[in-house]
Amino acid sequence: MENNSSTLVMFSGDLDKAMASFIIATGAAAMGKEVTMFFTFWGLNVLRKEQYVKTEKSLIERLFGKMMPRGPEKLGVSKMNYGGLGGWMMKKVMKQKNIATLKELMETAKELDVKIIACAMSMDVLGIREEELIDGIEYAGVATYLAATDGSNHNLFI
Amino acid sequence: MENNSSTLVMFSGDLDKAMASFIIATGAAAMGKEVTMFFTFWGLNVLRKEQYVKTEKSLIERLFGKMMPRGPEKLGVSKMNYGGLGGWMMKKVMKQKNIATLKELMETAKELDVKIIACAMSMDVLGIREEELIDGIEYAGVATYLAATDGSNHNLFI
Amino acid sequence: MENNSSTLVMFSGDLDKAMASFIIATGAAAMGKEVTMFFTFWGLNVLRKEQYVKTEKSLIERLFGKMMPRGPEKLGVSKMNYGGLGGWMMKKVMKQKNIATLKELMETAKELDVKIIACAMSMDVLGIREEELIDGIEYAGVATYLAATDGSNHNLFI
Repeated sequence: MENNSSTLVMFSGDLDKAMASFIIATGAAAMGKEVTMFFTFWGLNVLRKEQYVKTEKSLIERLFGKMMPRGPEKLGVSKMNYGGLGGWMMKKVMKQKNIATLKELMETAKELDVKIIACAMSMDVLGIREEELIDGIEYAGVATYLAATDGSNHNLFI
Repeated sequence: MENNSSTLVMFSGDLDKAMASFIIATGAAAMGKEVTMFFTFWGLNVLRKEQYVKTEKSLIERLFGKMMPRGPEKLGVSKMNYGGLGGWMMKKVMKQKNIATLKELMETAKELDVKIIACAMSMDVLGIREEELIDGIEYAGVATYLAATDGSNHNLFI
Repeated sequence: MENNSSTLVMFSGDLDKAMASFIIATGAAAMGKEVTMFFTFWGLNVLRKEQYVKTEKSLIERLFGKMMPRGPEKLGVSKMNYGGLGGWMMKKVMKQKNIATLKELMETAKELDVKIIACAMSMDVLGIREEELIDGIEYAGVATYLAATDGSNHNLFI
């Protein structure tokens, strides 16, 4: 089977799952595959800029914005988070062992031309505006994701 | 690669993940793909009828039945549930923005001939009877799911 | 589409998700497919030996080791765990109904030549040593996982 692409739906906004996603995505891209990552629901938090961006929002949108973590440095882990302790431990060990951080993996993904798409419908639901997300990404819906899965044998939901 | 089918394992019984599943499933079906959704473990709760159905059950089965949510309206979200607040906020925003509810997405899936299979083994473990689940679905085991993945390039576990 | 292999990333260390993984893996292997399971992050806990193994570890590694469950008997469930009650109920019902336990499924997987790979990078992060994991498995990185997905149409992230 001739096949040269991978797609990853990044639904979860957990640090550990985001790390796994980007390790798989950059690995696949380094092997010459075309990789598309589709960020939806909580996964959008991975793409948020760290700094606060002033935008017009409804009350519920402002609440969502405050309740959700802003960018890779603020994400919790999916297990044993213990109010951030688990994530802190994981980041500390990774630094000691010179393992790339999520931010670094995201940079590598860009350099390797991994296509990053933010789900427009989820942005609408969670009240996230384009100017709040990092640069160099695309905005699209599920049809664009599904088109990317055509002819791709390696499709994950994370 | 000629390929015209998708399979989704719906393991989780979360509102947000169920929404994502049905958005992908109906999108793929609308594009002409054959779609099979296999509901297993907590995913079965998505298929439960809202109204209580009287059945003969063991004590543990009755406990599971009471502890687990009954149908799409009762599901919580996988993150920031805060005793139902997160789910309520999400449903409220989606209503304001005229985004289809999970119930509506499930109707659309039926209209588009998405095949919905309830995992027989999980029903046995959680003590869920056929009469407690919505109509128009099939009951089968993992072999049926695996057969559906044959010749399908787009297989997700949600 | 000629295709005879499956890959499963086992990221989560939950009892219920591990059961689902091994049910799919053994089912696929019984149907003649080549199956590769890649255990990463919390999924490594599924592969830990039940008995304590004395090793040299840093403080954080010892902490991770103590905080995480040791082997299939100690895993919690992903929903309704209630301090172990949910897992206990699930195991009790499965015993009553003569459904294979996770340990038995893992034995079957070995007999069916399912390839089990422990993610070397995750072992490094969580401070897990080879002698702490069950026998008969391999140790490798994401490149080995990605190579296994080549030519495989059925790839899940669990």
